[in-house]
Amino acid sequence: METHEEFYNTHPPPLNYENDITKVENFVRCHKNEKIVLITSGGTTVPIEQNTVRFVDNFSAGTRGSASAEYFLDAGYAVIFIYRSKSLEPFVRHFVNDSLLDKLEIKNNKSIQVKEDKVEKLLPLLKKYKDAKASNKFISIPFTTLIDYMWLLRGSCMLLDSKYCLIYLAAAVSDFYIPPSEMAEHKLQSKDGPPVMTLHLVPKVMKAVTHNWSRQAYIVSFKLETDSMLLETKSKDALHKYKHQLVIGNLLHSRKYNVKLISPNDIEDILVTDTNKKNGIEIEKIIVNKIKTKHDEFINNI
Amino acid sequence: METHEEFYNTHPPPLNYENDITKVENFVRCHKNEKIVLITSGGTTVPIEQNTVRFVDNFSAGTRGSASAEYFLDAGYAVIFIYRSKSLEPFVRHFVNDSLLDKLEIKNNKSIQVKEDKVEKLLPLLKKYKDAKASNKFISIPFTTLIDYMWLLRGSCMLLDSKYCLIYLAAAVSDFYIPPSEMAEHKLQSKDGPPVMTLHLVPKVMKAVTHNWSRQAYIVSFKLETDSMLLETKSKDALHKYKHQLVIGNLLHSRKYNVKLISPNDIEDILVTDTNKKNGIEIEKIIVNKIKTKHDEFINNI
Repeated sequence: METHEEFYNTHPPPLNYENDITKVENFVRCHKNEKIVLITSGGTTVPIEQNTVRFVDNFSAGTRGSASAEYFLDAGYAVIFIYRSKSLEPFVRHFVNDSLLDKLEIKNNKSIQVKEDKVEKLLPLLKKYKDAKASNKFISIPFTTLIDYMWLLRGSCMLLDSKYCLIYLAAAVSDFYIPPSEMAEHKLQSKDGPPVMTLHLVPKVMKAVTHNWSRQAYIVSFKLETDSMLLETKSKDALHKYKHQLVIGNLLHSRKYNVKLISPNDIEDILVTDTNKKNGIEIEKIIVNKIKTKHDEFINNI
Repeated sequence: METHEEFYNTHPPPLNYENDITKVENFVRCHKNEKIVLITSGGTTVPIEQNTVRFVDNFSAGTRGSASAEYFLDAGYAVIFIYRSKSLEPFVRHFVNDSLLDKLEIKNNKSIQVKEDKVEKLLPLLKKYKDAKASNKFISIPFTTLIDYMWLLRGSCMLLDSKYCLIYLAAAVSDFYIPPSEMAEHKLQSKDGPPVMTLHLVPKVMKAVTHNWSRQAYIVSFKLETDSMLLETKSKDALHKYKHQLVIGNLLHSRKYNVKLISPNDIEDILVTDTNKKNGIEIEKIIVNKIKTKHDEFINNI
């Protein structure tokens, strides 16, 4: 397998990269010695053709990452939200669920309002969004392809090498990719028969995150599996291999109400009860509160 | 290659299918002897694993389909909009472009309004949306996978077998798929090395649309290519093979301002000028107006 150095040497940064990383740099400078969380969210795409028509995608609506961002803001963090373009964004997600336009009404033929019965829920959320923006507590940067993601991850992590920083890797990143040098230049033609796609393994960057880029940060990775037998073993293996602080393990079918927080010496099961759900309590609220406590202990070296 | 009959025999309909098709059926009954357009929009996904984590996706934001739906409503059509879940929807697209929440403001700490400087553009659009819903001129049905799409297409086309019906196939449909019987049950593990994906050709259903399901309708298909040399030849080939009325040919890099309307005896080049653009005229407005004329001639057998 290629090393991550080789990957970065052979894949130039995306066009927006300098701009995006400057934005992160300024944000981090603004919040020196405050708690900052970097959240990655949504899936990556791997183009199959150079003039991209088709790509291999990872399934992820971005629910985990976008919900967590809201609760990290509640918990006092400055939030850097690196997300797949068009996946869910914090606060925005409450407005776009169901039918956005059916939430709006026309008043006196000259203004557009959110319907009264929706205001109670949406007003506090909009206020939080405006406050976070006004106090410069929140920035968001979109990516699309695996290569975009890889560059943003490295650039941001290198700026977050302090114990006050939390790195929360919720994005669903492809394990495989097709190097641009091996892509078809034009759209594959069906008359040529089904294409044979030779996928390459994406170099593992977790070791670079924990050992090179963000050695002092508190690092949380995610494991999503469909086979419950594999989940704990693979999470423990990851902790052993990368020496980071926490793996959040979840199964595809139960991920909305059950996760495991797996640290080197402990496994904690988190379950959202039906009562929680009725009261509108999302599992991400519980996850973030637990992690905040762990991060505080880490900062104070308890 | 599999026939379309074999495809439908081996792939059962999606869970929502009966519900969705009943909705279309009622809509069509409501608009008997009026002009109806079926628009398909957005890309299809092809799951790689049975517990879907990864899939092959076709690139399509759904701009062409969603914009066209608005102009077909303007042109007096009843619109059935079958679209990829999360892709652009008519009217909604104007609200979600850029930052939705930055278009909203809090008034007197008790209501949420669209900012005054955005109202001029958005109010007429919201009004059109509300009118179309209130007069039952518009329904939308989402799909995700190729199999969902295939079922919705067949079911809807079979209900639209009349000269008053227009079928406007703007969705970007995968040419390839992996039969569920050949999918991995669980998430492919990277330790097993890069997966070999054997893709199957999706049976061509255009011939079934034109010769079996909607023999009397006016049918418009799309060709998206990256190689301009191939575009006209492939469009002409399609018309010859399927005997339908119109192919809209476009190239990936120029599709926002240039398309070709290719009919058996004629090729018409449509170009949005810079002046058009400055006046906010979208290419879909021009396309839809041209097609409306052609469809009227078709109905009146001119």
